[in-house]
Amino acid sequence: MSERLAPALIALDWGTSSLRAYLLGEGGRVLAAQSRPWGIQHTPDGDFARAYEELVGDWCRQWPGLPALACGMIGSRQGWREVPYALCPATSSNLVDGLLAVDTAYGPLYLLPGVLDASALPNVIRGEETQVFGALQLAPELREHALLVLPGTHSKWVSVRDGAISHFTTHMTGELFAVLRDHSILGRPAREQGIERSDEAFCRGLDAARQSAAEGVSGRLFSTRSLLLTERLTAGESLDYLSGLLIGEELRSVLASLEEHACPPLVLIGDAHLCERYRLALGRFGVTAVRTLENAGVTGLWHLACAAALVTATPTAVSRSAMHV
Amino acid sequence: MSERLAPALIALDWGTSSLRAYLLGEGGRVLAAQSRPWGIQHTPDGDFARAYEELVGDWCRQWPGLPALACGMIGSRQGWREVPYALCPATSSNLVDGLLAVDTAYGPLYLLPGVLDASALPNVIRGEETQVFGALQLAPELREHALLVLPGTHSKWVSVRDGAISHFTTHMTGELFAVLRDHSILGRPAREQGIERSDEAFCRGLDAARQSAAEGVSGRLFSTRSLLLTERLTAGESLDYLSGLLIGEELRSVLASLEEHACPPLVLIGDAHLCERYRLALGRFGVTAVRTLENAGVTGLWHLACAAALVTATPTAVSRSAMHV
Repeated sequence: MSERLAPALIALDWGTSSLRAYLLGEGGRVLAAQSRPWGIQHTPDGDFARAYEELVGDWCRQWPGLPALACGMIGSRQGWREVPYALCPATSSNLVDGLLAVDTAYGPLYLLPGVLDASALPNVIRGEETQVFGALQLAPELREHALLVLPGTHSKWVSVRDGAISHFTTHMTGELFAVLRDHSILGRPAREQGIERSDEAFCRGLDAARQSAAEGVSGRLFSTRSLLLTERLTAGESLDYLSGLLIGEELRSVLASLEEHACPPLVLIGDAHLCERYRLALGRFGVTAVRTLENAGVTGLWHLACAAALVTATPTAVSRSAMHV
Repeated sequence: MSERLAPALIALDWGTSSLRAYLLGEGGRVLAAQSRPWGIQHTPDGDFARAYEELVGDWCRQWPGLPALACGMIGSRQGWREVPYALCPATSSNLVDGLLAVDTAYGPLYLLPGVLDASALPNVIRGEETQVFGALQLAPELREHALLVLPGTHSKWVSVRDGAISHFTTHMTGELFAVLRDHSILGRPAREQGIERSDEAFCRGLDAARQSAAEGVSGRLFSTRSLLLTERLTAGESLDYLSGLLIGEELRSVLASLEEHACPPLVLIGDAHLCERYRLALGRFGVTAVRTLENAGVTGLWHLACAAALVTATPTAVSRSAMHV
């Protein structure tokens, strides 16, 4: 590592299932990265201090005094120290105001708060807020009004207004798919006979969800089985069909909630494969003006470290070529 | 058993998880009944002949030559002999025309076909069709037009027109609840801390589903967790809340499909506790003209045995007092 690329920050994304660590240099450039399957539910012996030491101890000893910042479930009640949620509408300043530190052998590790949307049916995020503020750095034109989609086990749809997280919803699409695949009658044929990827079956599921209109997929989930019984779907294709039904229901629901308003600029953030699947699905629903942003998480950690004066703000090094429209 | 009550029929409801046998006398009166957890997925050694012998062999030996009739999954591909589905619109004559027999040590056991609704998204029933025709015997005024609800693992909503099953849908509400309770993050608090029955939490879930309007519960399932995190629901109550969300989504979906038409007379058939729960739920959706019918399954087996001339038709002995409005 050359002298010119002096490390400036240790940044952690410490979630439920994984722990990712980044050594960031000037402008948020990634100098080194490593990860372990040590999310807070899987941290060996639940010993966060030791996991931290094992993952980033070398960096801390090599560059003493580096500031350290973490986002994600590590700040939850089940994490290292509970950091109270910031409330919607939440700005990056609100997040920074809520920082709390834990003591480590190498100095403080600052933990970011999550965000609470205290609607009648409340919603919470921990980690996604950092990706959202990263996205707003990468694409400042989104600050006024945008809808950011973070697909996953629990998909989050985050509305941004005037630079703040104004509202968000959670769709348990990934978890629903997993429990139905692994534990319901719908997953049994593929469990027994194996999986055969099929974009066509995925699109048939999407269409069935879209055509359900206000009824939703409640009465159509079982078609994953009845199409098989009537030999119009194979066991191998059935999981892609089910995935289409469930992602389709998520999109149908969100688009129904927007119906009377114009759809704000839509941005996908997250795992590239999953984002591509959602982009395909959105297209099937007639929504084609969708961009995908990469590196939003790291960018967000750097931006928030700057806002907290843990590091000196400089123009972000993540070029706009990371943004695909 | 007195001479006057001579047995006339051995009637079986042989489903996926259980096997119920009835010894029926004149008019369909139940002279004796017994059941085993020997549904076709749990029949010891998969030996249907031996299970039949063990359950009803005594009756067969005591009254040789009794006709025997079965409905349910025993007629499926995984059952004793596959009986092809009757097609919608399906009358009781269509069912009888499709009877197939298996040979037993005591003579033929006739197996009823299920029904296939060959819509673009097909649907199938095996066993429920018999309950439906039983219900039409118990309440003949339903024959012209009615919607019969059979709640359960897979709830069936069966439309009847002019004495025939014209259409039906499946809602996997019971199975969805079970997999989410046992395998998802939503069930974990109750799994760890125990269940506390709460009609109030059930109604809150119903209301959340009803108020979701065209959006459906996709973005509201997670409230089972977020209400807990914000201490507005207890772990013990959370499963009744989830049950309300899921049953509510089923009702919301069905009522959305009826919106432009008047709701036909609505009848609940099945397990008394579950029917009561659906009655409560329907009331929460403003649907109060709902009746519950008991003994529809046995009545249906008797009626179809008469239609098949396996027994001599006489007025059904199940009094109309079995019908609660």
